[in-house]
Amino acid sequence: MSIQSVEKEFLEYLQKMKSYNEAISLMFWDLRTGAPKKAVEQRSQAIGVLSTEVFQMATSDQMRSYIDQVLQAKEEVSEIAYKAALECEKEYKLSKVIPQDEYKEYVILKSKAESVWEEAKDQSDFSLFAPYLKKLVETNKKFLKYWGYKENKYDTFLDQYEPGVSVEVLDRVFGELRERIVPLVKRITESPNQPETGFLYEPISKDKQRQISEFFLKELGYDFEAGRLDETVHPFAISLNRGDVRVTTKYAEKDFRTALFGTIHECGHALYEQNISEELEGTLLCDGTSMGIHESQSLFYEKFIGKNPGFWNRYYDSLKQHAGGQFDDVSLEDFYRAVNESKPSLIRIEADELTYPLHIMIRYEIEKGLFNDEIEVEDLPRIWNEKYEEYLGITPSNDGEGVLQDVHWSGGMFGYFPSYALGYMYAAQFKHAMLKDLPNFDELVENGEFVTIKNWLTEHIHQYGKMKQPLEILHDVTGEGLNAKYLIEHLESKYAKLYQLEAAK
Amino acid sequence: MSIQSVEKEFLEYLQKMKSYNEAISLMFWDLRTGAPKKAVEQRSQAIGVLSTEVFQMATSDQMRSYIDQVLQAKEEVSEIAYKAALECEKEYKLSKVIPQDEYKEYVILKSKAESVWEEAKDQSDFSLFAPYLKKLVETNKKFLKYWGYKENKYDTFLDQYEPGVSVEVLDRVFGELRERIVPLVKRITESPNQPETGFLYEPISKDKQRQISEFFLKELGYDFEAGRLDETVHPFAISLNRGDVRVTTKYAEKDFRTALFGTIHECGHALYEQNISEELEGTLLCDGTSMGIHESQSLFYEKFIGKNPGFWNRYYDSLKQHAGGQFDDVSLEDFYRAVNESKPSLIRIEADELTYPLHIMIRYEIEKGLFNDEIEVEDLPRIWNEKYEEYLGITPSNDGEGVLQDVHWSGGMFGYFPSYALGYMYAAQFKHAMLKDLPNFDELVENGEFVTIKNWLTEHIHQYGKMKQPLEILHDVTGEGLNAKYLIEHLESKYAKLYQLEAAK
Repeated sequence: MSIQSVEKEFLEYLQKMKSYNEAISLMFWDLRTGAPKKAVEQRSQAIGVLSTEVFQMATSDQMRSYIDQVLQAKEEVSEIAYKAALECEKEYKLSKVIPQDEYKEYVILKSKAESVWEEAKDQSDFSLFAPYLKKLVETNKKFLKYWGYKENKYDTFLDQYEPGVSVEVLDRVFGELRERIVPLVKRITESPNQPETGFLYEPISKDKQRQISEFFLKELGYDFEAGRLDETVHPFAISLNRGDVRVTTKYAEKDFRTALFGTIHECGHALYEQNISEELEGTLLCDGTSMGIHESQSLFYEKFIGKNPGFWNRYYDSLKQHAGGQFDDVSLEDFYRAVNESKPSLIRIEADELTYPLHIMIRYEIEKGLFNDEIEVEDLPRIWNEKYEEYLGITPSNDGEGVLQDVHWSGGMFGYFPSYALGYMYAAQFKHAMLKDLPNFDELVENGEFVTIKNWLTEHIHQYGKMKQPLEILHDVTGEGLNAKYLIEHLESKYAKLYQLEAAK
Repeated sequence: MSIQSVEKEFLEYLQKMKSYNEAISLMFWDLRTGAPKKAVEQRSQAIGVLSTEVFQMATSDQMRSYIDQVLQAKEEVSEIAYKAALECEKEYKLSKVIPQDEYKEYVILKSKAESVWEEAKDQSDFSLFAPYLKKLVETNKKFLKYWGYKENKYDTFLDQYEPGVSVEVLDRVFGELRERIVPLVKRITESPNQPETGFLYEPISKDKQRQISEFFLKELGYDFEAGRLDETVHPFAISLNRGDVRVTTKYAEKDFRTALFGTIHECGHALYEQNISEELEGTLLCDGTSMGIHESQSLFYEKFIGKNPGFWNRYYDSLKQHAGGQFDDVSLEDFYRAVNESKPSLIRIEADELTYPLHIMIRYEIEKGLFNDEIEVEDLPRIWNEKYEEYLGITPSNDGEGVLQDVHWSGGMFGYFPSYALGYMYAAQFKHAMLKDLPNFDELVENGEFVTIKNWLTEHIHQYGKMKQPLEILHDVTGEGLNAKYLIEHLESKYAKLYQLEAAK
């Protein structure tokens, strides 16, 4: 068969996989937004059947043959086919080296572990979850033997979520962050200039909040002809295809910030997926290039736009109108200071902008220790609490609000947490690079010229999908590697102003 | 392999097909209830990929082998496996005898024909659609040579939607219906006792109508933990699985009857699917047994419950409350007479209870003529209009409100229309049988004791899914075959009262 025919067949094969994935994604979205309770059991079966099919296609001899032929003919095939083959090879290698019975056992273990974790969290009892977590860690250590590693054992896990980012890199940037943020948090906690925040917790109806979310999505350039907004418990954005990128949000009646900033966050994710180049549709490359780059887009919108003072100069009156009188006796400045309050807290997903990276570092250090045999699962509650005391000056009163708070480990997602902080650092680096092209960034925000900002992000980031690796994008956009400096500078300058701290000590 | 192992494998194979179908159904539902515009192209691809997979599974050598083995071992396999194999064989034979390239061509033809039909309808120009309809008819005539037929060529098409119902049967029952209904329609049209109907067209907001729809679904026993209600353009009910049977409705702001009676209609469909026996889940038998029996359930709820005078004795005040004052100066009797108005009209889906069967008979006679070479496609507009004049005393002013009004033919659905009228006759027969067990039927309705009615329907009809053939159910429930008498009696007595006609001429 000619290489042209092989390429055509390969791309059709990918389109077929993509179709299965699209159906799976829709079932996933539906389960989380409105499927009735009794649908779940049979729906899970259906998801299982389709997922198995995708897994088999990704690890089939046919796939191996496509990968080999396309990679060997680099000069003769399209760049898209070549890059897609590289992606497929990565997936193939990860899955194929694990004996099938071990993999099956692992899938079952994960599904059990998730429900046990849920119960353990409810009861704040780590001992219930410990044996499962132990097995999950052990299994991943066994897989690591199949996968191998370069410098550090934990690198292999990091690489699955953020290709190219290693322990060496993270130790450096997290070290820099820690050194500057821990004392900053302390100064803020001790500052006499604390914002008034009582009004944040006055109820706003779901209906009003929905209107507010829709309003901001439209303002920021989210295309409602290529997506929709729904309510859910744990918000997410999901791309079914380029023309159907859905956003979900949670309406907390007694804290409008959850939906407001949550929606802006998911909007950043969605704009990424809505603006990937059309020619990548159906190739498996039509996706964010990594968790970290994806998070950089959501955080860019949430922090650098949604928490920009100019943004609220522009929109505070609109918000007041939508909220129906709620904020009538709150000044713009008081509002702005309140939504930017920083305060050490126990729960990662409720943490503010400044303390959030510390939550991530704690998890990073623990995972690194686990896979380098320096930490035992039994010791996790103690270590967790010690680190919270050290970094944030507070200690969980039980495991539910401590080591058991996150779902990730129960699903075997080791190496995922750092993406959150990486995204934040990337975002600050992108912002710095953007200022060279758009020095009037703050003015654009204040004037609502978000199209200009979005177009810059699309030109430099969105359009490529998975055609570029994360560090390749970072380098192409900023001219350098990962650098914590920009995030540190942003946080120091922002919070010094907000809390009227004296100039650097 | 032991027959027990074959049976187990066969049932797993069906569960896999069911999973694909569940994903396809969800994509279909989503496209019609809220998918964004730009989702459609890629989503259609995904539906195509999964449908092809299901088709291949249904016509594979593996399937043939399962069917043969299970059917040969009737005494050793479960009744479910046996009945499922019968269903599969039917499907297998229908599809397998058609050469693959001819089938593919036909699929393409249908998809083109649907969009041409849409345009032709918009422009009220039959000549645009005629060449496609001609090809659709020709192709089906060619398929008929592969399929064969018993008495009448059209029987084969009827059998695909309503197994066991033939031209011979339909000629008889439609003849009886026509003989009694045509003169009844004429008497009503000429009656001086016409209802006041102006208030029917006063606007009620979508929100209020949604509340009304939800209210009646709950009252009638629809399980919201196993379904949901959404808005759409062409209402339908759809079963994703037994625990997820969704209802859709259309809110016409200027005619609340569309949503009100439409929802009650779809509720009847949904109750059927929600109450199929649990053991049939995942076997392809967990489905209504035919279009006609399905329609009998929806029409039972719409006509015999929703248009029962006792129903409105019970609920008129609730409706008034929900509508917010809309009907405050309309008496119960005036309301009841208005929603039961009968008047010859051109559009089938807007027709009232009495004239509706005449719309179906016209289509039946035309289809029968087409496949017996007695009618040419070119002559359809003329024949259509002549029949409307003959049966209903009115003539379409253009093809858009005449021969082009229905989508069915453009999708190759010949033999489908009679199911609507059959459903109506079945419903009247079931009602008659039910009265023997529940002679206080009207009282049950007036007291809102719908559980008793639903349980009767479940016991006699719903639970069986496709385990019984339609005429088998009819016979088991009523002790006789198809009989138009019950419907005729119902219509004559109901409309004589409503229009205060003199006793039988």
